[in-house]
Amino acid sequence: MLKNDISFKTSNINKIEVGMEVSYIQVISDANIKAYAELSGDNNPLHLSDEYASESRYKKRIAHGLLPVSFFSALFGTRLPGHGCVYLSQTLNFKRPVYINDTVTAIIKVMSIDKVKKRVEFSTICKVKNRIVIEGIAQIFIPE
Amino acid sequence: MLKNDISFKTSNINKIEVGMEVSYIQVISDANIKAYAELSGDNNPLHLSDEYASESRYKKRIAHGLLPVSFFSALFGTRLPGHGCVYLSQTLNFKRPVYINDTVTAIIKVMSIDKVKKRVEFSTICKVKNRIVIEGIAQIFIPE
Repeated sequence: MLKNDISFKTSNINKIEVGMEVSYIQVISDANIKAYAELSGDNNPLHLSDEYASESRYKKRIAHGLLPVSFFSALFGTRLPGHGCVYLSQTLNFKRPVYINDTVTAIIKVMSIDKVKKRVEFSTICKVKNRIVIEGIAQIFIPE
Repeated sequence: MLKNDISFKTSNINKIEVGMEVSYIQVISDANIKAYAELSGDNNPLHLSDEYASESRYKKRIAHGLLPVSFFSALFGTRLPGHGCVYLSQTLNFKRPVYINDTVTAIIKVMSIDKVKKRVEFSTICKVKNRIVIEGIAQIFIPE
């Protein structure tokens, strides 16, 4: 079984091992950025205005930092650990901007497992062109 | 000037003082949860299935943890510091579930200001019925 080819339907802490990882790749589109702005209410023109962004240090529009972070949620909730798991904590360092039309790879990897507390710690990173743009640590709870 | 009545259009670190805070209140609707599931790809049935959720420890559907967190992004990007600011980091502790139809109050408050590095540190919390459901710390960069 390939470590990056694991897909659980329902969470089961006994099937999780340190080192397991899953990933997800998506292009950050204009539509994604507008949908996140609509959902959150964050209409910062760095994300939405080509004109404003062109005069900024970034020169073009950047995605909301929390938009690629949503892919961690999807990986936890649908793949590893899978359905039923619950977010306990997440740290996030936004190291580089994610530009509109960038291809983001989100990767979660099991760092440690506490079977008594039913908690799994993951490293969580997003990469663009093989450079880390977002990194952090997440704690996930797996109910019985 | 009331501390909770500050609305900047464009970020200016010189107008920011320790203790300033802004807040935002929203009911977490079924439509919000479905929009976040669509955007993120996280279709964990704890968020989307009444039947699945009714058999869970939570008894009813809960919001994606990162959904109310998006309100921090909106407060930073539109109100304090305002347009043009950039997320550097965010820590998040999901302390209690947010249920569908809960009214969430998101509050960001200036904890410290580094004018040399142009960084502002905020406490970030979400409350439901005056109890903290999410808490953390954010670092925001304010370009010239």
